[in-house]
Amino acid sequence: MKQYQTWEAGVLNSDGKWEYFPAVVPGNVQRDYAEYSGILENIQYGTNVTQLTQVEDCTWKYRTVLSFKAAEDEKVFFVAEGIDYIFDIFLDGEKLCSKEGMYTPTELDITGKAENGSLLEIVIHPHPKAKGSVKGDRSEAAQACKPPVCYGWDWNPRLLISGIWLPAYIETREPGYISLCEPFYSLDLENLKAHVKFNIECEEIPLITVYDPDGTEVYTGRECEFTLENVRLWWCHDHGKPDLYSWKAVTSGDEKTGRIGFKKLRLVRNDGCLGEKGGLFPKEQLTAPITVELNGRKIFAKGTNFVNAEIFSANTSEETYRRLLDAARDANMNILRMWGGAGLAKPEFYDLCDEYGILVWQEFMLACNNYEGTDHYLDVLETEAVSIIKKLRGHVCLAFWCGGNELFNSWSGMSEQSLALRLLNKLCYEYDRNRPFIMTSPVTGMAHGGYLFLDVDIEVFSVFRNSDKTAYSEFGVPSLAPVEQLEKIIPKEELFPIMPTESWICHHAFRAWQDNSWAHPETLEHYFGKTENLEDAVQKSQWLQCEGYKVCFEEGRRQWPVCSMTLNWCFNEPWITAANNSLISYPDIKKPAYYAVRDSLRPIMPSARVSKFQWESSEKLKMEIWYHNDTAQPVSDTVTVSVTIGNIKKELIKWDTGEVAACSNSEGPCVGLTLPAVKGESRLLITLSTNGGKYDNSYTLSYKCKEEQNKPKVMNL
Amino acid sequence: MKQYQTWEAGVLNSDGKWEYFPAVVPGNVQRDYAEYSGILENIQYGTNVTQLTQVEDCTWKYRTVLSFKAAEDEKVFFVAEGIDYIFDIFLDGEKLCSKEGMYTPTELDITGKAENGSLLEIVIHPHPKAKGSVKGDRSEAAQACKPPVCYGWDWNPRLLISGIWLPAYIETREPGYISLCEPFYSLDLENLKAHVKFNIECEEIPLITVYDPDGTEVYTGRECEFTLENVRLWWCHDHGKPDLYSWKAVTSGDEKTGRIGFKKLRLVRNDGCLGEKGGLFPKEQLTAPITVELNGRKIFAKGTNFVNAEIFSANTSEETYRRLLDAARDANMNILRMWGGAGLAKPEFYDLCDEYGILVWQEFMLACNNYEGTDHYLDVLETEAVSIIKKLRGHVCLAFWCGGNELFNSWSGMSEQSLALRLLNKLCYEYDRNRPFIMTSPVTGMAHGGYLFLDVDIEVFSVFRNSDKTAYSEFGVPSLAPVEQLEKIIPKEELFPIMPTESWICHHAFRAWQDNSWAHPETLEHYFGKTENLEDAVQKSQWLQCEGYKVCFEEGRRQWPVCSMTLNWCFNEPWITAANNSLISYPDIKKPAYYAVRDSLRPIMPSARVSKFQWESSEKLKMEIWYHNDTAQPVSDTVTVSVTIGNIKKELIKWDTGEVAACSNSEGPCVGLTLPAVKGESRLLITLSTNGGKYDNSYTLSYKCKEEQNKPKVMNL
Repeated sequence: MKQYQTWEAGVLNSDGKWEYFPAVVPGNVQRDYAEYSGILENIQYGTNVTQLTQVEDCTWKYRTVLSFKAAEDEKVFFVAEGIDYIFDIFLDGEKLCSKEGMYTPTELDITGKAENGSLLEIVIHPHPKAKGSVKGDRSEAAQACKPPVCYGWDWNPRLLISGIWLPAYIETREPGYISLCEPFYSLDLENLKAHVKFNIECEEIPLITVYDPDGTEVYTGRECEFTLENVRLWWCHDHGKPDLYSWKAVTSGDEKTGRIGFKKLRLVRNDGCLGEKGGLFPKEQLTAPITVELNGRKIFAKGTNFVNAEIFSANTSEETYRRLLDAARDANMNILRMWGGAGLAKPEFYDLCDEYGILVWQEFMLACNNYEGTDHYLDVLETEAVSIIKKLRGHVCLAFWCGGNELFNSWSGMSEQSLALRLLNKLCYEYDRNRPFIMTSPVTGMAHGGYLFLDVDIEVFSVFRNSDKTAYSEFGVPSLAPVEQLEKIIPKEELFPIMPTESWICHHAFRAWQDNSWAHPETLEHYFGKTENLEDAVQKSQWLQCEGYKVCFEEGRRQWPVCSMTLNWCFNEPWITAANNSLISYPDIKKPAYYAVRDSLRPIMPSARVSKFQWESSEKLKMEIWYHNDTAQPVSDTVTVSVTIGNIKKELIKWDTGEVAACSNSEGPCVGLTLPAVKGESRLLITLSTNGGKYDNSYTLSYKCKEEQNKPKVMNL
Repeated sequence: MKQYQTWEAGVLNSDGKWEYFPAVVPGNVQRDYAEYSGILENIQYGTNVTQLTQVEDCTWKYRTVLSFKAAEDEKVFFVAEGIDYIFDIFLDGEKLCSKEGMYTPTELDITGKAENGSLLEIVIHPHPKAKGSVKGDRSEAAQACKPPVCYGWDWNPRLLISGIWLPAYIETREPGYISLCEPFYSLDLENLKAHVKFNIECEEIPLITVYDPDGTEVYTGRECEFTLENVRLWWCHDHGKPDLYSWKAVTSGDEKTGRIGFKKLRLVRNDGCLGEKGGLFPKEQLTAPITVELNGRKIFAKGTNFVNAEIFSANTSEETYRRLLDAARDANMNILRMWGGAGLAKPEFYDLCDEYGILVWQEFMLACNNYEGTDHYLDVLETEAVSIIKKLRGHVCLAFWCGGNELFNSWSGMSEQSLALRLLNKLCYEYDRNRPFIMTSPVTGMAHGGYLFLDVDIEVFSVFRNSDKTAYSEFGVPSLAPVEQLEKIIPKEELFPIMPTESWICHHAFRAWQDNSWAHPETLEHYFGKTENLEDAVQKSQWLQCEGYKVCFEEGRRQWPVCSMTLNWCFNEPWITAANNSLISYPDIKKPAYYAVRDSLRPIMPSARVSKFQWESSEKLKMEIWYHNDTAQPVSDTVTVSVTIGNIKKELIKWDTGEVAACSNSEGPCVGLTLPAVKGESRLLITLSTNGGKYDNSYTLSYKCKEEQNKPKVMNL
């Protein structure tokens, strides 16, 4: 039985005395301190968050006076499922253990040592900061096995969080306590047979019962190995049902429950990537496999990079995860990349992904640094990685492991020889052999970026056009936050014009990635001239984000079967940014780009390849029309392509797609027209209408009428 | 004490009876059979070797009547250091063990079981042939952990060899027997301190003594951990001395000896490879590190692919290895790639490489197949790989491990996800963490090929010119074997003209790689018209090989510091091929190209980049002149560039190189001339003369005088 305690937190002041305040467990102690000191309420506003940097090197403490009941034959354990990050545990002043690492549970047998009224204390030491790193820089994370994002990132304020981040409690254990009960299976996909084996640690042999997704009992008995016939497979939501079996194991003194999903997932090379590039000598290796083959079907992996949902990530609620995952599923996303910089989500997240039918690409907690393989680092990494693998390997949503983010790039400098990554490969092989592992993203064939609508002189419309990557696992187009959000975080007097003031900088509008990222007022001016007011700037910035993201996602889909994955950077954000590539403003405000992406990811739909955003009258607008079918059935449709400027609408073509095979594209006609002069209009609308309207697609581009032209207001085909 | 036995071999005939014949142990049983049946003497001739395919699926046996002495307190072991490949061992009819795998030693305690006169038998089962493979094809090797080359390769006849390939003996062990004594060290390169630790398994603590390379005692004692000061580093022969320490460990009943070389070797990215290609988004990963950094110095790895020295590779003598390694060292080669198709060499080979200062890139026994990670295959691979790593990790010559050959190419289809390669990475990490590991060759950035002087319409002179690879780990230019060698293998009546007759085909002149590989008479005809006789064909073919190899090796060197490795395919050959890319004709006949390559690999030398092989009068010959310095000291020189046609010689330039920094190139002038008409000449000689002549370089190219031209016989600059 788990018996939860009431905790108090403390900070060690410069005078050597502890100052105590109420604590939320699980949670981050810095959040408790922020609440206690009055910072929390307005932490989103202005530069308030920076007040917490004063305490980033403090020593913290949790304490509780134990209160629990235990029968005579019960053992008493103190269990902490995760404590972040370097800590000692004391019972009545006696040190029970010292540890480094937030992912490995602590289980202390305190039978006979602890009694009601005993004082349990957990002292949390300051965060590690790598030798030779720049003070205050994220490179300080280079020897820490914790999410580096808290050392500051271009969308996350520096906030060195720690604390009892997962549940902690007194657990009394009867004889018959099941200390381990974990199902594994091998799946015969052809005959839909699953050979199930439970690994059990228990003094008794438990009675195991398995129920199918409808709740019907399909096995009960005390054998820990058995075969299930005609199993129902787990699919990601856009390819089938995420069917989950459930099980329970019962002894005289315990009951454990869990779920099993049956799937087979491999990373393979896609059909478009079978030859060495160019085909001539000297020949390199083929690209690394990155196409998700789920239950024998190669699918297009469409999704996003999911980051920590809160700056105090330990305080993320299940409800928050649920709202974000609802949004991801509704946006036709079948995969989330759990980016290494943010580490793992809380356990509830993975349960929800299992249920929702959303695949998870899970990274270890390395990002953008050179994590040198010192003995100490490797020791901690090994312990933590084993805990992580054991914690997550039972989740059917888990697609594959990845060492971390951008580790093979010049700004990190790691490589296939880095001991940390060789170790992770080894541990994943040992503990979860049949789940794929990639050392980092991108690996050969894949790519990250770009991240802007206009990068120097290259527009997002042309970035991907001539690219031949197997996966675009990061790319982004920024926008300003919605006006009502900006009003919450930027002092009124700084709101407009958008300038690199302290608050805008603190909220990543400037000096985050480049000097002018992520607000980029120059880009707005380039396309639209001076913006009139905040509303105007936000609206235009969000327009660019919508059309930019449509180009990226749809171009990736057009490149199937060379490309088989598009994941934008990023989905959500852990606090209100003033400008960001996110689709959702904290906590759950959907930007217009969210809806644009949702539409671009529909399994069945037409798309148009257009060369640029800004058009003028008398220019020749050309488009290639495509039809996408990511489902397992063939489809056919008729696509009517029209261009509308103001009240002038011209139908260019009616394209009968014929049969578009399962999981494929059909490349349709190339159509065009010379744009007419339509005075007073600034937008051009391309519509792709489909039978019944369900799969319609459209693009809103910038249009200028050359006033000096004397051409008639008619369309010239 | 090791007590060697006299063995007899046998083959199980179709009537179910054993037919016995004398055996050489260690050796291949098929060689013994070939000798017994009279095939061996003329095995090189015609198609004689194919007679052995009749017995490739036979069951073989070794047997010996034991004869040994053992004191009463001694244990008696039967030790077989390596038996190829699937076998059972019987003692007086009782099965002692069944095993698969040739690299794992067998040690059987037969104390009290065996006596003088006991019959020891080893039954060797037929070779595994992968399910679904093509009969007689090398794909049959795809589930075998033995060198696939014996299944047939484009320069090795199919010969499914097996047998007691390493020493086998009765070993009597006194109390005090040292069952393990293996030194490890960590090296502080800056202070030249080595922390040495011996892993010892022995009932007694042995007395350990260590001697420096001069034989001076530097440690003696019974501590198994100690520090050596001012250690002398091991260098490859072209960068320093291959200094070796030696040690002995002595107990009351045993003595073991060995050597230690102190070096630090990493694979790093070279200075020319620091950025993502192109620098623009979307960005891929950086290339994989392949530059050898030895003792802190990035070196140019120059060498070759070393293959099995004999078709009956178990019968390779130390003397054979020594002659080949002499040749490699004399050819300025500092690294040998032990290509996976041929597996490991015999132990003597690695001892010699330690002594010679030649680095070894060692591959596991996978090549050009998709080695599916079945449970059985992975089990055998794990056992074998652990044995291999333990066997070789003490050799200072060993530069890095590699999973095998061309596994990430379309003709193999393996990938970073293949379980066999993930397993090998894991095992190398566990047992030899500080030695680099690459999964295959090529990995990203590296390349293999081309393999011809003229491939369709691309000449070797242009293949590498616009390439930007980090390493060329295979490339080749074929030639015919020397005339006296051809006369040994091709029946007289087939010798000329060179045609795809049985004997030429059997010796890889045709239908080996492509239809006309490796003889390619069309290439000779393309450049020279019809050849007159065998001598003429051989001479011209060898001329092309010389100049072709010069281009490859020297172009790779000019590409430093992007490129840092050039290894030709291949150095040697296991029998007399009629045509091959080898530099040495079996067993040790140096082809002219050997000397050309030797000259192209001198640490200090000039080179000229020329665009093609064949020139005509009135054409403009242009050259870029370079100077290469692969030593650790700066050099300077004066290079005089001349062109000679017949008795006309024109000096084009005298280039004062200035200081050419250590481990670098200097790009010199681009010079040229319009070629004069010189009647009756067919060759053009480019000479790069250096101060004192030591570093002179030259190129002999094809020249044609356009008879119809009326230009004067003078040089036009």
